[in-house]
Amino acid sequence: MDLSGIYPALTTPFDTNGNFSAADFKHNLHRYNQTDLAGYVVLGSTGESVLLSDKEMEAILATAKEAAAPGKRLLAGTGAESTAETIARTKRAASLGYHAALVKTPYYYKPAYKPDVYLAHYRAVADASSIPIVLYSVPQFTGVSLETPEIVALSEHPNIIGMKDSSGVVQRTVEVVAGASDDFQMLTGSASVVVPCLSAGAVGAILALASAFPEKCVALYQLYRQRMYEQARELQGKLAVASKRVVSEAGIPGVKFVMDLRGYRGGNPRAPLLPLSESAKTAITKAAASLEPAAVGAS
Amino acid sequence: MDLSGIYPALTTPFDTNGNFSAADFKHNLHRYNQTDLAGYVVLGSTGESVLLSDKEMEAILATAKEAAAPGKRLLAGTGAESTAETIARTKRAASLGYHAALVKTPYYYKPAYKPDVYLAHYRAVADASSIPIVLYSVPQFTGVSLETPEIVALSEHPNIIGMKDSSGVVQRTVEVVAGASDDFQMLTGSASVVVPCLSAGAVGAILALASAFPEKCVALYQLYRQRMYEQARELQGKLAVASKRVVSEAGIPGVKFVMDLRGYRGGNPRAPLLPLSESAKTAITKAAASLEPAAVGAS
Amino acid sequence: MDLSGIYPALTTPFDTNGNFSAADFKHNLHRYNQTDLAGYVVLGSTGESVLLSDKEMEAILATAKEAAAPGKRLLAGTGAESTAETIARTKRAASLGYHAALVKTPYYYKPAYKPDVYLAHYRAVADASSIPIVLYSVPQFTGVSLETPEIVALSEHPNIIGMKDSSGVVQRTVEVVAGASDDFQMLTGSASVVVPCLSAGAVGAILALASAFPEKCVALYQLYRQRMYEQARELQGKLAVASKRVVSEAGIPGVKFVMDLRGYRGGNPRAPLLPLSESAKTAITKAAASLEPAAVGAS
Amino acid sequence: MDLSGIYPALTTPFDTNGNFSAADFKHNLHRYNQTDLAGYVVLGSTGESVLLSDKEMEAILATAKEAAAPGKRLLAGTGAESTAETIARTKRAASLGYHAALVKTPYYYKPAYKPDVYLAHYRAVADASSIPIVLYSVPQFTGVSLETPEIVALSEHPNIIGMKDSSGVVQRTVEVVAGASDDFQMLTGSASVVVPCLSAGAVGAILALASAFPEKCVALYQLYRQRMYEQARELQGKLAVASKRVVSEAGIPGVKFVMDLRGYRGGNPRAPLLPLSESAKTAITKAAASLEPAAVGAS
Repeated sequence: MDLSGIYPALTTPFDTNGNFSAADFKHNLHRYNQTDLAGYVVLGSTGESVLLSDKEMEAILATAKEAAAPGKRLLAGTGAESTAETIARTKRAASLGYHAALVKTPYYYKPAYKPDVYLAHYRAVADASSIPIVLYSVPQFTGVSLETPEIVALSEHPNIIGMKDSSGVVQRTVEVVAGASDDFQMLTGSASVVVPCLSAGAVGAILALASAFPEKCVALYQLYRQRMYEQARELQGKLAVASKRVVSEAGIPGVKFVMDLRGYRGGNPRAPLLPLSESAKTAITKAAASLEPAAVGAS
Repeated sequence: MDLSGIYPALTTPFDTNGNFSAADFKHNLHRYNQTDLAGYVVLGSTGESVLLSDKEMEAILATAKEAAAPGKRLLAGTGAESTAETIARTKRAASLGYHAALVKTPYYYKPAYKPDVYLAHYRAVADASSIPIVLYSVPQFTGVSLETPEIVALSEHPNIIGMKDSSGVVQRTVEVVAGASDDFQMLTGSASVVVPCLSAGAVGAILALASAFPEKCVALYQLYRQRMYEQARELQGKLAVASKRVVSEAGIPGVKFVMDLRGYRGGNPRAPLLPLSESAKTAITKAAASLEPAAVGAS
Repeated sequence: MDLSGIYPALTTPFDTNGNFSAADFKHNLHRYNQTDLAGYVVLGSTGESVLLSDKEMEAILATAKEAAAPGKRLLAGTGAESTAETIARTKRAASLGYHAALVKTPYYYKPAYKPDVYLAHYRAVADASSIPIVLYSVPQFTGVSLETPEIVALSEHPNIIGMKDSSGVVQRTVEVVAGASDDFQMLTGSASVVVPCLSAGAVGAILALASAFPEKCVALYQLYRQRMYEQARELQGKLAVASKRVVSEAGIPGVKFVMDLRGYRGGNPRAPLLPLSESAKTAITKAAASLEPAAVGAS
Repeated sequence: MDLSGIYPALTTPFDTNGNFSAADFKHNLHRYNQTDLAGYVVLGSTGESVLLSDKEMEAILATAKEAAAPGKRLLAGTGAESTAETIARTKRAASLGYHAALVKTPYYYKPAYKPDVYLAHYRAVADASSIPIVLYSVPQFTGVSLETPEIVALSEHPNIIGMKDSSGVVQRTVEVVAGASDDFQMLTGSASVVVPCLSAGAVGAILALASAFPEKCVALYQLYRQRMYEQARELQGKLAVASKRVVSEAGIPGVKFVMDLRGYRGGNPRAPLLPLSESAKTAITKAAASLEPAAVGAS
């Protein structure tokens, strides 16, 4: 399975009662279907997956599957703290027709989660799954990291095909590309280092920013692939600045607000996440406008 | 509600199929009932609560309520990532007769979890709950901390009665005792600093180590209360050494193994946690024996 | 050598040209001589020692030796990055009549400074020195820590008599008191946890705050020694709050400013340290007044 | 002044008595003069500068100046903790004919070193210096970082021409290139991310690894400049693996040992740094051989 290209980490829209809005979710997907996005990541960190009930997760998976255009690759976030629950979620995603599972590291019992724990966990999940597994390390949320030695070891498993590394540590991409099995595919989760990661051998990116600016993120990828390095570097700089303001500093509420600015259905986050303050909204509107003046100005 | 004294953070025993064993759980509680433990913490971090299904959590809460002797105070761990789910769990614990809810901080969206998020979250939970709320900060697992200013602010809420601080940062206990409302009660979650925390004004401790050595932990508390400081300091030193080997280094598998050594029903942890290696077992057996030679030697 | 009691970490006063002012330094020492301080720490972190030339350090050591009342114990900060330079400084302090050397960990090549490096370094210094060595770990400045196993190992050296631990980690004091040789003496460097550390077996404290509030710090120690625990705890709370504002948040400029408020010669720090802003001065004045209203009000 | 290209961070050879060996130092420089290295960094972190006396630093600066071939650019490490001493060292380097000064951040009083401290410090140094200033941030040793906002602000100073960033954080290079003044030049200090940093707009690198493998490091740079990206990426992977073993894990003793293997004069480090163990030597020999089999095999 080819993972190359740009994927948005989909957000979860809620209606005015705070319930998942399938209509708003479909609205977003139908617009994304018009772009050159490679596919969709459903129930990732940006999707507020840790704030959802099992029933809501099921509904979101089914809705995304239904709304996605044919040809868009579908990755389901299925990582849970327990190995058994991770396997159960992965099997459910497979049965719904997802192409691969994105499996976040367990992260609660940090002092106990030595590399052998991750090796055993991921091998058990990959053995049990009928769809390919993509490792997912996101230390800014989990406080733990998959490191090069265990990634390289896991790359040998026939059902582990790649990794989303949201650490922003480009050195790890360099090391994994040098050491992993030949067909192992690296994706970055950081909009600030897409070009550096591509230069190191990554094949693409899964980005929260792509939920609000899919065309810009795809353009960055295509400029690089077409070897237009000067233009790629310049766009990379702009995306890094926007991503810092919108994603790193304002988080999911920031991403959702910029989606609203650009005509998608973002909306409010679920508690304990708080809606943006007015001053944050002003700052983010400015950051978004500097990236794409006309589009934001029009909303 | 008086929180003073020593509480074990109860472990969750599994049978050979990996399912919750109510029989083993009751066995442990019946033995604990014979001690001077002040009560029990059910579904805490040591209880592998993040690895359990909703149904299992319900069964464990009910079993503990049934098996606990009258007079033992019952605290339920009810913290979930979302505010709504935390409220739902807290209400369920209240309806089962629990005396208080121990509410762990949300911790996934760390960069967004500024103090105002925690203030809003805990106030919403405390407002909605019919039983008192005890704050719970455990940075070694969550990667986030409740800091003095927000703890002091939350201490003013009439339904927030205390805090379990598992950070081991004694300075925070000093500061909170100096700044919080007069009836706010601090509990430490670290067996290594029980005496220093009591000297700073804490009223007790919730300890994983007390699941294996309830009498020793109670003795430490009583020595301090009886102003036998030299003996308290000496026992504190021994407990610190044992706790480092058993709890900090070996984690839940270590606690469960020492419970087995001492005639409780510990058993294996749930995956991704791995059983102890033989060399770890040898080291822990030695650490446990140094604390209570006869009891461990007898098992 | 008995290390018990309270020591101020002396500041270094500069004249209007930015040069060391021996007159101001003596002024401070003459006032401290009237108190029950156990002695003085010269050229510690609070003394801006890393900003001084060799010649200035020599002048300060000689001046303090001259101005200190008989009976006050004198500790010289002699830790340098290189072992050879540390030995040279320690010998110089011994020749000037200092009673002990306080030897900060080397800290620049952190990734290389494994425990065996610290064992070899401190043993070489202790072997070469005619005066006793006191270990000094101050992670908030150095970014490295001496941990229990190496401290316990070094406590066996006949010329290593104790340690100043400025980490604030009370657990380490518990562990070291439990594991070190019987005559090894722990001092805390954190005004926020003096009582908890004494309860854990520490013998005293070296405090920046004692440069501005020597009587208060000595009173805390004496209350504890006289087993007046309730009063000790209450004063500890007040000192913790003041220390956080003055020492932790405002640093050396804050300590010097409060010294000025209380009639000592504090003055400005050396660049790159910046003088306090007016708003910081206001906040600190308030914090200082809450600790000792009359004295500060009078300045 | 053009900073582009590859620079070795020169090591300091000691003779059997532990004194600086000018002869060995010249030997190395004469060999480096034969390569396409852009110039030399003298008295950097790799040069054990924090372990040297003022007199030794003077001798090393003079010797390097004398031995360097015309056309090699000379950068002197002049950062000290105090602003005044940093200025004095920078002036001395200028008087000896150095082309630029590489000025490490002050780092001891971390809690006080807010961005305004660094702005004032660097502006004072740049104002006082007759040669251009290159900022230097090396968090693995100092525990502090220059962040994008202050770097961008300092890039406006006419006498601050660039930065060596040893953090390995490629995102910062992206951000600085996007935000700094047009002629501000970024150099990376991490051999693991040379290609990613070049792709982000960096102009070169200052590398400890280039003291042992100057040709390999220069080849990496030239492959990239010649747009031979596939070959550059492949060599980058090999250098990352070697750098991790030799520089990150074994530190200066590792770099010096590999220099010995390759016919340079490495030798032992100064205490408290310890010589390599035999097992570390074996591991490093293997790592070095995997990078350049023949050259290492021949030594």
